[in-house]
Amino acid sequence: MKALPNEEIIYFGDTARTPYGSKAVSTIRAFSHEITDFLIENDVKMIVVACNTISSTCLEDLRSRYPDLPVLGIISPAAREAAKTCDGDNHVGIIGTRATILSDAYRKKMLSLNNAMNIYQEACPALVPLIEEGIIENEIMDLTIRYYLDTFIANNRIDTLILGCTHYPLIRKNIERLYSGLRIIDPSEEVLVSILETLAKNDLYADHNIGEHTFYASDLSENFRKMIDRIFLETEYKIAIKCMNLDKRHAVFSRITKLT
Amino acid sequence: MKALPNEEIIYFGDTARTPYGSKAVSTIRAFSHEITDFLIENDVKMIVVACNTISSTCLEDLRSRYPDLPVLGIISPAAREAAKTCDGDNHVGIIGTRATILSDAYRKKMLSLNNAMNIYQEACPALVPLIEEGIIENEIMDLTIRYYLDTFIANNRIDTLILGCTHYPLIRKNIERLYSGLRIIDPSEEVLVSILETLAKNDLYADHNIGEHTFYASDLSENFRKMIDRIFLETEYKIAIKCMNLDKRHAVFSRITKLT
Repeated sequence: MKALPNEEIIYFGDTARTPYGSKAVSTIRAFSHEITDFLIENDVKMIVVACNTISSTCLEDLRSRYPDLPVLGIISPAAREAAKTCDGDNHVGIIGTRATILSDAYRKKMLSLNNAMNIYQEACPALVPLIEEGIIENEIMDLTIRYYLDTFIANNRIDTLILGCTHYPLIRKNIERLYSGLRIIDPSEEVLVSILETLAKNDLYADHNIGEHTFYASDLSENFRKMIDRIFLETEYKIAIKCMNLDKRHAVFSRITKLT
Repeated sequence: MKALPNEEIIYFGDTARTPYGSKAVSTIRAFSHEITDFLIENDVKMIVVACNTISSTCLEDLRSRYPDLPVLGIISPAAREAAKTCDGDNHVGIIGTRATILSDAYRKKMLSLNNAMNIYQEACPALVPLIEEGIIENEIMDLTIRYYLDTFIANNRIDTLILGCTHYPLIRKNIERLYSGLRIIDPSEEVLVSILETLAKNDLYADHNIGEHTFYASDLSENFRKMIDRIFLETEYKIAIKCMNLDKRHAVFSRITKLT
């Protein structure tokens, strides 16, 4: 929204069925088809799969399902950044959901770009459910992070850590406080580079500002409302949250309008 | 299965959309309609809502949806047991999901049976996601239990604790170890009394043993397989797990056969 002020964003968050990271790949695929079909029905010109679990397990499948428009994943941009800035002296760690780590997608992509890299991976399945519950600035979260990362970082001498799950930027401060000196790569920052490149290459830039974005969620819980409030706190956007039944998926939506 | 050897059980676990406890009530209701409709299509003679969140928010709704067969919830049986065995000297605590505690269903039911009771409630939203991830015999689980219960039990002088969520019996040992002397009421034990009564009253007992039960799940993840294995370990049941697409819900099922 900040980098592309003219673009209208249509977002779908599957809050009714989160978390995805420990589900079977066949289920993740079926759900991602439903969501992307819904976005296509809403006339999008490009799809960004802003979820590491779906990107690492179903991206090629989604690309063959929609051959006529760009489908961007979140793995390659971060892998490129790591491959570009790290060499054989670095030790790169990847943390993610069980499905993301099992897919081996980050490691394969990075090695294809730079085969001198030292890469280590760790699945951290309890982190997403705790973040979804808003347990962030809290002893439980710190202990859970240390449970997964203390040995992983020390034993493998990790100096660069890829936050391989869209939820993890919400605990970036905890990780930085617990492991000072660690370099963090956030795929949600890197994917923006790919978005800009793809819009330019396909001549897809919008030429005027609509100033309104629509966020759909499959469940409008208190947790979701709080997360929306936290994200848009102190921004120039006005939020209107409204429930609606949608295509039997019992969806809700919230419209975000830029204050002018 | 142990108490009613002649009865055939058809079970549906919504593993693809768990956890329910922090979702909006409208979403919980929509999902519970889908599941109970599916059970009705499978010719069940009685429905047991073995979920505290659904029982405490949607039971009356489900009863009016299916007026022709008994629909049992899990709240009343445990509330009856507490009201029968506690008096004004006891301090009864209820723990559950956010939706269960917000519904106030346990407290209302107990006070209707015994208005001298001292009742205290605490929502523990992080427990289910951690149990679903198999984080049970673990420092994280103990710390999370203490985060919710240390002050709650001490300040309210709780002597009796109702495990108001179907997942909590899996951490009963942790709770007993951390708070010795606490009396635990497990609704899943109490609901069996209601099941026996209802089958008798409606003359619904099966007269011969089929020896086979069917367990449906909406996602067959590694976590679910492990939980099945743990539950049926060292029992006389043989388990065959098989995937199937079912009614667009992408369901899977596992058939449990009694070894003879």
